[in-house]
Amino acid sequence: MRLKLIASLVALCVSGLALADVPLRDRAKELFEPIPSAPPAIPGETATPQKLALGKMLFFEPRLSEIRDVSCADCHNLSMGGVDGGALSGGHNGQLAGREVLTVMNAIFNKSQYWDGRAADLADQVVNSVMANPKAMLKTRGGPMPINPTEHAAAKQRAVEQFKAIPGYVSAFKQAFPEQSDPVAYDNIGRAIALFEATLITPDSPFDRWLKGDDQALADAQKEGLKLFIEKGCATCHNGVNIGGAMYARFGVVKQPAPDYLPPDDWGRYAVTKAIADKYAFKVPSLRNVELTAPYFHTGATFDLKKAVAVMGESQLGVALSADETDKIVAFLDSLTGHQPEVVLPILPPRTAPPIAQAQ
Amino acid sequence: MRLKLIASLVALCVSGLALADVPLRDRAKELFEPIPSAPPAIPGETATPQKLALGKMLFFEPRLSEIRDVSCADCHNLSMGGVDGGALSGGHNGQLAGREVLTVMNAIFNKSQYWDGRAADLADQVVNSVMANPKAMLKTRGGPMPINPTEHAAAKQRAVEQFKAIPGYVSAFKQAFPEQSDPVAYDNIGRAIALFEATLITPDSPFDRWLKGDDQALADAQKEGLKLFIEKGCATCHNGVNIGGAMYARFGVVKQPAPDYLPPDDWGRYAVTKAIADKYAFKVPSLRNVELTAPYFHTGATFDLKKAVAVMGESQLGVALSADETDKIVAFLDSLTGHQPEVVLPILPPRTAPPIAQAQ
Repeated sequence: MRLKLIASLVALCVSGLALADVPLRDRAKELFEPIPSAPPAIPGETATPQKLALGKMLFFEPRLSEIRDVSCADCHNLSMGGVDGGALSGGHNGQLAGREVLTVMNAIFNKSQYWDGRAADLADQVVNSVMANPKAMLKTRGGPMPINPTEHAAAKQRAVEQFKAIPGYVSAFKQAFPEQSDPVAYDNIGRAIALFEATLITPDSPFDRWLKGDDQALADAQKEGLKLFIEKGCATCHNGVNIGGAMYARFGVVKQPAPDYLPPDDWGRYAVTKAIADKYAFKVPSLRNVELTAPYFHTGATFDLKKAVAVMGESQLGVALSADETDKIVAFLDSLTGHQPEVVLPILPPRTAPPIAQAQ
Repeated sequence: MRLKLIASLVALCVSGLALADVPLRDRAKELFEPIPSAPPAIPGETATPQKLALGKMLFFEPRLSEIRDVSCADCHNLSMGGVDGGALSGGHNGQLAGREVLTVMNAIFNKSQYWDGRAADLADQVVNSVMANPKAMLKTRGGPMPINPTEHAAAKQRAVEQFKAIPGYVSAFKQAFPEQSDPVAYDNIGRAIALFEATLITPDSPFDRWLKGDDQALADAQKEGLKLFIEKGCATCHNGVNIGGAMYARFGVVKQPAPDYLPPDDWGRYAVTKAIADKYAFKVPSLRNVELTAPYFHTGATFDLKKAVAVMGESQLGVALSADETDKIVAFLDSLTGHQPEVVLPILPPRTAPPIAQAQ
């Protein structure tokens, strides 16, 4: 009897919550979209199993880099939310002083790539900016890479020659691009990696489940955090399927952040457009899996998500969030952690000759 | 009719080969042993799923290193036969000048770890030598690490404190070592990683299949190569389950190799035993998967396996192998590539606070 009463009370509470969820969900649906359960298509590309297999090999391939010791996976660690935990980027080890690594997870949903949007899409990011020398890229702030175009072309040529000397790769490129007579080509590297990267999506986060109608997927504090996230203005920039990644915004629009958050010598998007309005503008980063992608900001200035939320409130919205409000917003942000892709490590083909750079 | 005749001829050839295989196989079985199909047990350890899961996480964990950017997997790349392809070790990038990385694949079958055998087993290798600063280890030649013991102890302490500050690790250690009251402990890191590493075995190579009775698993040239490998004396040192890994031998016993193969300042096993007889002695490396583990020798002096075989013939056996003999021995060595373990990348828990080293 007593049990039945408790059950009825629970049912009442649940339905009460469900009713209260409806208007919030309606507002949220206007602003946000769940990550789809299957990877999106890249226009003009067919993601064959052979292309995806090659793309995964190349993503994990240290021999892709000029110095042969850095693969995409080193900075975009798929065990760590697609970032490097602040180890290589952001100047934390005293050797490199570039921008913080942006995650490769869900990057396919971003409108452009990099903090300054200088790459239009994933293949562009892979082919034109990174491959020749990822460490050089990490060292630079803003703008296209400061690599001499002649040297860049030579580095591309060396990469292609190296793969042509590895029988396992010659065969993998042939299978991936069977219609081409000379498939071991630089652009194909970018196409294959981009196709693999497009599979790195994180569906089924608690927030997405809630968005689709599961009232129980979020705790009350998380729902309150979502409400604050919308009402305080965070969602003005952080919206869409990636809850960010769709626009540029000046960092420090209301109040200039401290120099470790916004160093005066990194002009952001300005380096790409040369438009005064873009000075100190950066791509609004996706907040998907933000729990996993510390440290935060393009400088990696803090590992503390509460601090990051507080800084954003002050610098972008001109509001001083209370500790309770910050806690709730962070609780909501934690609900953006989706199902991380299950990645089986590829087996890379052995080289049968010295790498080109050593052959002399 | 004609088809039947061909079939009979083929059957005759095959059975002819099978007969010829018997004496060679009998000799081979006295010298070699196949890799078992299941990972061997580590004495005194129970490999629970929880311990293996923790061990895999830690193997891929860059935060394990003092500088937080090098995991075991960076040098022991499981996509590349468990080595780094010469990128970090061996002095190839001009910054590091240590010994070539030895593969972690089948390392459980070695009698000791490192080129000089200074670690008795895998847990010892992980805990006492590597974790505090793998790059420092790579920089040193021979002997125990030149790390101040006080600093080493402090580094161990920092590693433990860091994991204690990551809730996902606290829980993973508890599940792996449920009988302990304070499971986030340095020794447990070594135990868990060693258990995971013991699963990294490569059974089912063509040679092992042949050894078990499959005459078709080796080509004729490979069988001739095996015969040469035994008769020329290679198998005197390279034998057992790992076809090496079981003893030490002086490099240059007959003829001293060139200094890029045997630098005069690396005294090898001598640094561990201080016995004159051990000067320039090194652990005989396993030849399992040798096709995948270029560059070769403790110096990584060559990527060319034929060259490596020729150098060994001259320096260790005092024989000048003909090009045909070298080709056949290399054909045999290629048959030692086994089935590489299928590894699903672990998902590492996020840190919720700055790393200890940055917290100040």
